[in-house]
Amino acid sequence: MESRRIKLTLEYDGTNYAGWQVQTNAPTVQAAVEAALARLTGESLRIQGASRTDSGVHARGQVAAFNTTCNIPLAVFAEALNTRLPADIAAVGAEEVPAEFDPRRRAVRKQYNYVIRNSPLRRALDRHQVWTIRRRLDREAMRRAAEFFLGTHDFTSFSNGECADRGEANVRTIDRSELLIDGDLLTYVVEGRSFLYNMVRAIAGTLVDVGAGRFAPEAIPDLIARRDRQAAGQGAPPHGLCLMWIKY
Amino acid sequence: MESRRIKLTLEYDGTNYAGWQVQTNAPTVQAAVEAALARLTGESLRIQGASRTDSGVHARGQVAAFNTTCNIPLAVFAEALNTRLPADIAAVGAEEVPAEFDPRRRAVRKQYNYVIRNSPLRRALDRHQVWTIRRRLDREAMRRAAEFFLGTHDFTSFSNGECADRGEANVRTIDRSELLIDGDLLTYVVEGRSFLYNMVRAIAGTLVDVGAGRFAPEAIPDLIARRDRQAAGQGAPPHGLCLMWIKY
Repeated sequence: MESRRIKLTLEYDGTNYAGWQVQTNAPTVQAAVEAALARLTGESLRIQGASRTDSGVHARGQVAAFNTTCNIPLAVFAEALNTRLPADIAAVGAEEVPAEFDPRRRAVRKQYNYVIRNSPLRRALDRHQVWTIRRRLDREAMRRAAEFFLGTHDFTSFSNGECADRGEANVRTIDRSELLIDGDLLTYVVEGRSFLYNMVRAIAGTLVDVGAGRFAPEAIPDLIARRDRQAAGQGAPPHGLCLMWIKY
Repeated sequence: MESRRIKLTLEYDGTNYAGWQVQTNAPTVQAAVEAALARLTGESLRIQGASRTDSGVHARGQVAAFNTTCNIPLAVFAEALNTRLPADIAAVGAEEVPAEFDPRRRAVRKQYNYVIRNSPLRRALDRHQVWTIRRRLDREAMRRAAEFFLGTHDFTSFSNGECADRGEANVRTIDRSELLIDGDLLTYVVEGRSFLYNMVRAIAGTLVDVGAGRFAPEAIPDLIARRDRQAAGQGAPPHGLCLMWIKY
């Protein structure tokens, strides 16, 4: 049997997982998908994910790739896999890709959304997917602040676990950085080819700090220039974050 | 202290509850709200709900009323109650109403939504709020069928636990009955002053049966006229149903 390389698109609720990447002694999305693939194909497979989402972070369009010799037709692959996956993970697409396809390196653009509800009253139905901020935020200041993240910068100030003085290593390009305001729901939409560890949560948390008056929107370029995580704002909690899609 | 009557508006995720109404030996939304009110007010209160939602059914705008002598200002009542409620129940409004206010009898219109995803591929994030039908449904037939429920009819065929030959007792008026189609998501929107037990789920299930070719849309008036639950279609599962709002 010939080996094929398959690109899976996955949606998941990250609430009950210790993130994407396989760990010892903690349930992860990668481990759950690999276990379901083993049941489906009879093979012991290792999958390669595009984005290492953190514990509690969700995805509507995570991408993972693996090689298999199983002959399950692609047209029914995702459906068949879904019957083996837990209810909080779903395959929403499967396609064959060239043997050299690398879901992380081949990505040309990703979109993340971070959702905030700014209301004294929390809700119940979206509690695992929205960060509620009860204090009234200056939404217009947040909207203006979001625009300052556009372009190519060294984002050391907005990443955990990255050291300064890595030369170009912490430079990233943000192609879209926009706060959408729909009543009390504020959705920060950010797009780029790749992001540093915890970068979107650090930006979202800093936007909330701008909304609370801790920073002026115009201070963002300086926070970036300092290349110091301590200079920027708080990190936002994981559950408001969702990996929306990845383009290749 | 004078007694006040307070009208609460509640959102909840019904997944982990045996419905609204207090039961022995099963967690219910009413019992959880009464327990939180007891902690907040120091009084042992009994609340009166507008709609007895079933196990697994959600609400964005359930209404409940109770009398209290506590002097917590209305402006902060819902916020204060939320700190005592479990995360899957939230108060989203509180207002004072006349002593005779009856949330069930005073309702002039309610809206329920029933959400169906018609796709071979299930999803993960909305798994507790959407009924997935993998088989391709005839959406246009469903849309036409929905319109036949409009108006005043004896809905015995669309209720569980109601007997035929109750005279006028099973007559209800539906003011809106519409299937909204957004890609694979089908939302049945229904409005009326009141509904029979399980009526919206019986209608939603019958619409799916129309989509699957079991009934023609034009057969709906006959199914209604038969006044026999066996004549109509399947009952839809509870988790796709949400009580959206109640007007007074």
